[in-house]
Amino acid sequence: MNRKMICHMMGQLITLEGFLMVLPMVCSMIYREQGSMTAFAITIIFALAVGFLLVSLTRKCDRTIYAREGFVITALAWMVYSVIGAAPFVISGAIPNPIDAFFETVSGFTTTGASILTEVEPLDKGILFWRSFTHWIGGMGILVLMMAILSDNTGRSIHIMRAEMPGPIVDKITPRIKNTAMTLYLIYLGVTVIEVIFLLCGGMSLYESLIHTFGTVGTGGFGVKNDSIAGYSPYLQWVITIFMILSGVNYNLYYLLLCRKYRRAFLSEELWVYVGIVFISVGLITLNIAPLYDTASETLRQAAFQVSSIVTTTGYATADFNLWPNLSKTILLLLMFMGGCAGSTAGGLKVSRLVLLVKMGRRELHQLLHPRAVRVLKFEGKPLDNSTSRSIGTYFGLYCLCFVAFFLILSCDPGAHLDFETNFTAVSACFNNIGPGFAGVGPTSNFSGYTDFSTILLSFAMLMGRLEIYPILLACFPGKIAK
Amino acid sequence: MNRKMICHMMGQLITLEGFLMVLPMVCSMIYREQGSMTAFAITIIFALAVGFLLVSLTRKCDRTIYAREGFVITALAWMVYSVIGAAPFVISGAIPNPIDAFFETVSGFTTTGASILTEVEPLDKGILFWRSFTHWIGGMGILVLMMAILSDNTGRSIHIMRAEMPGPIVDKITPRIKNTAMTLYLIYLGVTVIEVIFLLCGGMSLYESLIHTFGTVGTGGFGVKNDSIAGYSPYLQWVITIFMILSGVNYNLYYLLLCRKYRRAFLSEELWVYVGIVFISVGLITLNIAPLYDTASETLRQAAFQVSSIVTTTGYATADFNLWPNLSKTILLLLMFMGGCAGSTAGGLKVSRLVLLVKMGRRELHQLLHPRAVRVLKFEGKPLDNSTSRSIGTYFGLYCLCFVAFFLILSCDPGAHLDFETNFTAVSACFNNIGPGFAGVGPTSNFSGYTDFSTILLSFAMLMGRLEIYPILLACFPGKIAK
Repeated sequence: MNRKMICHMMGQLITLEGFLMVLPMVCSMIYREQGSMTAFAITIIFALAVGFLLVSLTRKCDRTIYAREGFVITALAWMVYSVIGAAPFVISGAIPNPIDAFFETVSGFTTTGASILTEVEPLDKGILFWRSFTHWIGGMGILVLMMAILSDNTGRSIHIMRAEMPGPIVDKITPRIKNTAMTLYLIYLGVTVIEVIFLLCGGMSLYESLIHTFGTVGTGGFGVKNDSIAGYSPYLQWVITIFMILSGVNYNLYYLLLCRKYRRAFLSEELWVYVGIVFISVGLITLNIAPLYDTASETLRQAAFQVSSIVTTTGYATADFNLWPNLSKTILLLLMFMGGCAGSTAGGLKVSRLVLLVKMGRRELHQLLHPRAVRVLKFEGKPLDNSTSRSIGTYFGLYCLCFVAFFLILSCDPGAHLDFETNFTAVSACFNNIGPGFAGVGPTSNFSGYTDFSTILLSFAMLMGRLEIYPILLACFPGKIAK
Repeated sequence: MNRKMICHMMGQLITLEGFLMVLPMVCSMIYREQGSMTAFAITIIFALAVGFLLVSLTRKCDRTIYAREGFVITALAWMVYSVIGAAPFVISGAIPNPIDAFFETVSGFTTTGASILTEVEPLDKGILFWRSFTHWIGGMGILVLMMAILSDNTGRSIHIMRAEMPGPIVDKITPRIKNTAMTLYLIYLGVTVIEVIFLLCGGMSLYESLIHTFGTVGTGGFGVKNDSIAGYSPYLQWVITIFMILSGVNYNLYYLLLCRKYRRAFLSEELWVYVGIVFISVGLITLNIAPLYDTASETLRQAAFQVSSIVTTTGYATADFNLWPNLSKTILLLLMFMGGCAGSTAGGLKVSRLVLLVKMGRRELHQLLHPRAVRVLKFEGKPLDNSTSRSIGTYFGLYCLCFVAFFLILSCDPGAHLDFETNFTAVSACFNNIGPGFAGVGPTSNFSGYTDFSTILLSFAMLMGRLEIYPILLACFPGKIAK
């Protein structure tokens, strides 16, 4: 393993984080928040110092990245970012306990949106801005951002792309990685700007518009109000609903649209399955919860908001779905696991994996009846090779095994109000990067009930979920596990 | 599809069931139970009449069985057996509602042990005998039994064997299917006799010994007491514990032992993983529940009994594990899904599948690091071909999808006391053929809370679980699904 090169990239990444933190510091300046301002200042100085040091010490190094480096860099980058990102919370005293601060930051970068804060409103505006800004950074990816900014001087950086981008199949939309990364971020930026404008039109302040846009396009879910989005006007709720759904779509499709390749974009199987599932779920839940609300429009809004918030693993809430009937709760739970499309900012298993799974299931049945028949699976028009289809099944299995492991360890937490359902949904909510679960970690409550150990465990669950298992596994047990 | 041959085999099967029912009728005679005796008499006459008719009408038919026939015959056989087997319950008035009777019988044949009866003690002894006898028949398999008895006049009956025997890989232990089936049943009979003797030594009446042996070796779980096994002496509880664990082992291993192939038997990977998991679980739970019981020996007994009852998906209980701490409950839940070894009478996903899954996961990780490396997976000393490993992953996916489907539909049940956890574990308990779940369907309560629709749904879940999905899927949607 090429340690020198890894240190070099870490240096670049840390420097980048330093610069990124300038934005929230400016925010604190505007609102004249001494405490948080100094907190950011200290962190920035530290980050830049360490970053420059690392970069300058390792200037001469072989830049080619192999698969293993790709995974290790990705895993390290996300952990380092979370540690440094947590500093302002601790220094400013917003979250005194470092472990809780780490959890909150991981939850930010992984766009989970799970919080250990019982009260967010009293916090400094600058701190809250950083808290939500992490969603935006993590949404499209830390390393993708770096590749978009830095000159593409590292060889084979596709390995990093593969390691960080969600979904079973990652393809470069442009021949050069750097261009791919830039295009993705430009589209991302565009969507962000558009939503901000829409929210401003709804009479939301610029500050809150930014916060909620970060939370929406990053599918994170951090807000500034204790009651999440419930307090805002129906118009604003609808805007957020629509942008949440849009953020669950594969960004490559937006690129295709920009290139006027409408046909290819609209023929995407994944897109239609995703849209179909969203509509059906909204329909079912609307019928199911109708008795709970006065007007049909309100019922529909509540259903649509909660569904798109859960399916895109955002985690905003306008209603306490803990009080909804069983069917609705079950649908939401299943959507939690499905998640959005591959290549989107959403978490979960990804729609494409489920589509492929169903196809493989049918192929299997066909094979059982006609043992000699040979059948080629197709996805998005392209034939699927054996190794991909095999790795889908394996990923599914690993996903379940990891889930089981987290669930098992979490059950050892002696926390008082932690019942079976709470632990189960806490893991679902973190591992799928959603945010709120049911029961004890439902939309109206939070994760403050867990011990420090469980908090760290859940932080790792979030990282594993965001990076889709492999990078963390390979970074934690490099040699052994892959013997 | 060769309908004529299928009818012929159905005829043979129904006749066989008629003869099998003579045993419980004799039991009713002994205990002078008029009602149930006539109920059995009527059913037997009906079964024999229909059976002989079908056989004689279809005497001339092509006897070769292809994959599709294998699956359809298996699925049909199990449904027909459950329908006819339910008749005595209805006629005798023990379970007036036919749907509930069907559920109870399916639960019997699939060795699930889930009951809709709130009170079993007042029932006729003959009825209870039949109820438990279905466990014994279903345990090793209806069609395996038929193949063991009838002359092996049907070609390629390995297809039936494959469809009915649990586990990813089914191999004939002897070249001729008929011999394989006979050997398996002889071993099965042997184990049964030995347990009866052990129970008799513990001072249990012959009748109760038989009932509980059927429940144990079939890993079913029906008993004669409302408090399951809790009322019996520690000695009897230990005997049942040990025989439950033995019933979770692949029967091929017993065959190997009989052939003095000790080395091959004791080198089975699956066996050791299974034993290891059982020991670790017992250890953890013992430590976890220690505060709840007075003596160490009692704690150990309770832990050992519950673990072996759940891991082998038997479902007997000596304690209400609903009141146990979270960790213990979680471990039990996970064991529910794992189940016993392939080729045993236990349900669940089977240990071998999990072992293979872990191996595939590690292979996947290895592949990610060394894209060009080629690695052959080995299981039980034999190399694993691609199609098998692929189908393991697919089975895992299908298993989850079916589970999700059942869970989703069940959540529509308006039943009053049915919460999230109850529905979830109800599906787990039926789909994995365990019996009791947690909460509303815990060891101290039962399934009577569900509507008729849900009862039918859960019956299908049990059948699907016992036959490992494919036969039922292929029988229900023959052409469409496998297009």
